[in-house]
Amino acid sequence: MDSFVVGVDIGGTGTKFGIVDNVGNVLFSSEMSTKKHEQINTFIDELYEKLSELIEKVGGFGRIKGIGVGAPNGNIYTGTIEYAPNLPWRGIVPIAKLLQDKFKLPVRLTNDANAAAVGEMMYGAAKGMKDFIMITLGTGVGSGIVANGQLVYGHDGFAGELGHTIIIPEGRQHPNTDQKGCLESYASATGVTMTAIELLKNSDRPSLLRDIPLDQLNSKVVFEAANKGDEIAKEVFDFTGKILGMALANFVMFSSPEAIILFGGLTKAGDLILKPTREHLEANLIEIFQNKVKILVSHLKESDAAILGASALMWE
Amino acid sequence: MDSFVVGVDIGGTGTKFGIVDNVGNVLFSSEMSTKKHEQINTFIDELYEKLSELIEKVGGFGRIKGIGVGAPNGNIYTGTIEYAPNLPWRGIVPIAKLLQDKFKLPVRLTNDANAAAVGEMMYGAAKGMKDFIMITLGTGVGSGIVANGQLVYGHDGFAGELGHTIIIPEGRQHPNTDQKGCLESYASATGVTMTAIELLKNSDRPSLLRDIPLDQLNSKVVFEAANKGDEIAKEVFDFTGKILGMALANFVMFSSPEAIILFGGLTKAGDLILKPTREHLEANLIEIFQNKVKILVSHLKESDAAILGASALMWE
Repeated sequence: MDSFVVGVDIGGTGTKFGIVDNVGNVLFSSEMSTKKHEQINTFIDELYEKLSELIEKVGGFGRIKGIGVGAPNGNIYTGTIEYAPNLPWRGIVPIAKLLQDKFKLPVRLTNDANAAAVGEMMYGAAKGMKDFIMITLGTGVGSGIVANGQLVYGHDGFAGELGHTIIIPEGRQHPNTDQKGCLESYASATGVTMTAIELLKNSDRPSLLRDIPLDQLNSKVVFEAANKGDEIAKEVFDFTGKILGMALANFVMFSSPEAIILFGGLTKAGDLILKPTREHLEANLIEIFQNKVKILVSHLKESDAAILGASALMWE
Repeated sequence: MDSFVVGVDIGGTGTKFGIVDNVGNVLFSSEMSTKKHEQINTFIDELYEKLSELIEKVGGFGRIKGIGVGAPNGNIYTGTIEYAPNLPWRGIVPIAKLLQDKFKLPVRLTNDANAAAVGEMMYGAAKGMKDFIMITLGTGVGSGIVANGQLVYGHDGFAGELGHTIIIPEGRQHPNTDQKGCLESYASATGVTMTAIELLKNSDRPSLLRDIPLDQLNSKVVFEAANKGDEIAKEVFDFTGKILGMALANFVMFSSPEAIILFGGLTKAGDLILKPTREHLEANLIEIFQNKVKILVSHLKESDAAILGASALMWE
């Protein structure tokens, strides 16, 4: 009899989950709110109820090998979510144990970007690769690193915080970490918005973006303006790609990946961001690395990717 | 009967080699010039002659398990040295094959910093660690990265060029690579000298260093002046430590090592450089990494370390 795994992707706003077969098909999936659960126990109860329905559809709990979970600051060694700023639960949450006790199934947890990297390695753009880096460019910047065919967890399980590496010393201040000039302050949806505001302030050149109230300015609006040929909007993406390319060059000189897989909202800007990124990546590499590394955009369906990635932890 | 391995460390000026037992004792060692051999074949011939003498002392070729070689731009996958700017041989040198044919023994090659990392893992400060980064601060900056207990080679064998990561965008130009603002331009013996020259030029404050002709200024002289309390000389190390600490923070947020092992000439400056390095490392880390990572100085005898590291490739 076939067996299946469950993938759960816990995000700040919502949690997605689904049943996955051993070739990466998401058979059934659903989602629920994370935010409304101030208590972890009520979150677990609702997840149990909703997941049980899906599990029954594939023949019951006996068919399930285990549950893979991706969550911000999820730690594979301890099975705990530790001090995740975007989740409603404070401190250290022993989520793997709580799920294990409730579902009576094996549970593996890692952070969401690591889970996505495993998903890419098993079903996506990194299939067959042993050395690659996965970067998610969303509200923030997440990352998962694979070297020698294995996720790099580091001694404490927290490796791969590439969004927090410093790219511009004494640069833009990060609102949460107080760091100055880290990648996330530039190459995220939030960073794009901040760059747009800066460029608008620092010149009086005309721009479609000037018609938009500051509190409605976001990366999508900037993308639309750039597509209409707006010079300032295009500059925003050039600048973002410049910073991202420089950062990627540093990552390449660290672990020499075969490819860097980009994922998340900002990749929708396509060549607007990818072209300057590639250019500045190559410009900052020393010769032995030039014209070798592929920059790929994940082709997994966004709604499935998170679930697939988490579930893949159980096949790993 | 005990068996032994040979370690060979090929440097731009000289090559060191020795016979090592399985607990890391260098039983016999010697060295020869690299520089004088414009042809790789005469280099191999002299190495064979000199090494044979040592091998006879431990009972002949039958006792030797193999030869481990560390060399700049040495590639473990191909057994070749590729475009090493500091060696007399141009292009791609199939050194592993040449040695194998000559000695009729298994040969493993990697770059010198990777070899040093293996040496530290087997016999040195990183004994028992599964996640650490080795950084050599000499004329240049080399590095070897260990994650999940394995050297990170990358898809092409060239991972770990941390000396070439960009720390100060648009910063100091590197004389060989033309990169601007890479770590090696600051945190090397050469970088220290350049910083001293800059600081002397940019002020007219008194300094012991002003008595020294520019072409005799080097990191050792700056160290001696700093030890005598010279303010500018101390500032040179503060600045060097600041850049190094910032770079190390980025490396920690990449692979979350248990320790960073420092090695090479600059570490002799002790707390002059280590104190600002530690300070700026911590200041640039996000919270989950703070006060966790050890900064250790290699305690292997410098003359042995290179041979041990190379030989350890054969026990690996």
